[in-house]
Amino acid sequence: MADPANCPPLTRSSVQAAHKLIRPYIHRTPVLTNTTLNNLASTPQTPESLVGTQWEGHQPAHPKLRLYFKCENLQRIGAFKARGAFHATLRLMAQEGWEANGGREKGVVTHSSGNHAQALALAAKTMGIPAHIIMPSISTPTKIAATQGYGARVIFSGSTSVEREAAAAEIIAETGATLIPPYDHPDIMLGQGTLSLELQEQSVELGASGGLDAIIAPCGGGGMLGGTALSCEGTGIRVFGAEPSFEGANDAQRGFDAGRRVESVTSLTIADGLRTPVGVYPWSVIYERKLVQAMYSVTDEQIKTAMRLVFERMKMVVEPSAVVGLAVALFDEGLRGVMEREGGDAGWDLGVVFSGGNVSMKALSGFFSVEGA
Amino acid sequence: MADPANCPPLTRSSVQAAHKLIRPYIHRTPVLTNTTLNNLASTPQTPESLVGTQWEGHQPAHPKLRLYFKCENLQRIGAFKARGAFHATLRLMAQEGWEANGGREKGVVTHSSGNHAQALALAAKTMGIPAHIIMPSISTPTKIAATQGYGARVIFSGSTSVEREAAAAEIIAETGATLIPPYDHPDIMLGQGTLSLELQEQSVELGASGGLDAIIAPCGGGGMLGGTALSCEGTGIRVFGAEPSFEGANDAQRGFDAGRRVESVTSLTIADGLRTPVGVYPWSVIYERKLVQAMYSVTDEQIKTAMRLVFERMKMVVEPSAVVGLAVALFDEGLRGVMEREGGDAGWDLGVVFSGGNVSMKALSGFFSVEGA
Repeated sequence: MADPANCPPLTRSSVQAAHKLIRPYIHRTPVLTNTTLNNLASTPQTPESLVGTQWEGHQPAHPKLRLYFKCENLQRIGAFKARGAFHATLRLMAQEGWEANGGREKGVVTHSSGNHAQALALAAKTMGIPAHIIMPSISTPTKIAATQGYGARVIFSGSTSVEREAAAAEIIAETGATLIPPYDHPDIMLGQGTLSLELQEQSVELGASGGLDAIIAPCGGGGMLGGTALSCEGTGIRVFGAEPSFEGANDAQRGFDAGRRVESVTSLTIADGLRTPVGVYPWSVIYERKLVQAMYSVTDEQIKTAMRLVFERMKMVVEPSAVVGLAVALFDEGLRGVMEREGGDAGWDLGVVFSGGNVSMKALSGFFSVEGA
Repeated sequence: MADPANCPPLTRSSVQAAHKLIRPYIHRTPVLTNTTLNNLASTPQTPESLVGTQWEGHQPAHPKLRLYFKCENLQRIGAFKARGAFHATLRLMAQEGWEANGGREKGVVTHSSGNHAQALALAAKTMGIPAHIIMPSISTPTKIAATQGYGARVIFSGSTSVEREAAAAEIIAETGATLIPPYDHPDIMLGQGTLSLELQEQSVELGASGGLDAIIAPCGGGGMLGGTALSCEGTGIRVFGAEPSFEGANDAQRGFDAGRRVESVTSLTIADGLRTPVGVYPWSVIYERKLVQAMYSVTDEQIKTAMRLVFERMKMVVEPSAVVGLAVALFDEGLRGVMEREGGDAGWDLGVVFSGGNVSMKALSGFFSVEGA
């Protein structure tokens, strides 16, 4: 991986440069709108639904919203992670002496049980270089098969971060491969931020004539939220982050409150892509540079409700992590109040990032099998 | 409803006229392609998977297929039925003396527990006329609520066809409303066939440079398959029908074998939109005029496998009835052999109709909750 010190500066124009670099390899995913979801988001919640929350007894907010959904569930490998993986790989290959020093034979390595594993496997295969992917031996067989399906070598490890990092160090020593981390690196952030450049253009084509008022995006390690924030710098578009609240997975929100980054998370939220703490580079953009206005969080039940709406009304498959932004827009009275006050009669054009769609039918059935009609 | 004797002739140009009439009211739904599904469909089945079928011991067929999916799950009300309902309603309103005879006040009536109920409710609401929808009192609450949500008056009845028809007769006597049947009428067929006109154009835009070789579509009452067949007459595009085989729901296939229409079906296939026998008007087009080349059928397990593929690979929600065409293309060795022989090295461009996406998360979880990983 490129030494971060040699990476492009973390700016909007670096995101634009990243987009130019990766465009031949990724899908320009569609942006969808949906009348039913606009109506739902523009209807006040019932007073009863606020009972037991800090908003109990308040007048429910009444924002007027037009939502623009960026469908990265339709991205290659089923998630935005393809963007960062292609960008980091291409930047690595462009390093002086990379080929002469045997970079093409040494390849790349990462440890991931999720979308980044498949994303890096795809990028490496496309570039004709080897990928060594360390996965916990308890990973689901479908994820292992998918990663191997892209031609990667899968190495099994224990599931703790210590065990995974030890396995990675061993592979690096053995092969000379370069580590491509899942989120905590400038090249990854710049790659992920390209989705937001597209969203900004596509929403105007779809009728947001004055441009978006804001974008809300999920936050796990923060690579994508950080990249999104960079892509909006200087545009006047506000950026909000969304997290699951279950078992403290809202580490970035808690970090905003405490004034410093929370460094570890142990949550089993159903939003399994968001169980990681925000990384150092993303935090520098999201919090220290104040490029994200605020963080919000939702319960796992609210995530399931949002998934069901997308499924039944938009006929789209999204993974739990993908809908935390929509869930915040529908259910968080704090943000809904902001949107009502700032949007006024004209309302707001709100970009909502659907980050991925990699959920198996089996997992989905498990989430909803004990539910009512 | 217009007296069938006064309907336009059942021809391709009548489908084109229907399209002109309904175009302002319906979505031109997208046509999607998918590399993974093309690869799967172009890979021979394993010899083991043919054990116990009539193809056991045969060399599995090896067609080369490029699939073009017409996504009527993204149509208004979530299914193609909106097309026929708008067409029949507009044709009714254009009848001489309709307004003078109080047609606008009398409105329309149908009996349906499925997509046609919502489709007619939407069409009537759009035209500002009343809709009376007879639904079995055992219908799921979400379907009742959805139909009422379009402003229709829902009248409950018993669930047998005798009880439903008696309830309809009573409403007609009481209100003077005109019956709009779900499939067995020329105006309905002509409306449904418009999806195939769009598919023919869109597949060329997407790279089927010589036009489609064939279209495969689900067959329940046969309105949509019949309309599709009409829309292909004289174009050289072959048309195939697909049905579930469970408990004899493949009535049209059996009718092809026997040389006459099968008039009743009692099947509880999971493809709940395809539990009805083919109607008289559709049969006249599908079989008597030989505009459909052949009928194929698949098991409920094959339907579930196809649903899962669409869900996990295309990230799209489709109802069980919607994927019978895809399931036939993947699993029926009879059709696969035809496609291999006729397509040869060049392969085939095959249009596949996804008819609808109205499946609740609860129902879906039920189908897959006892499955393996």
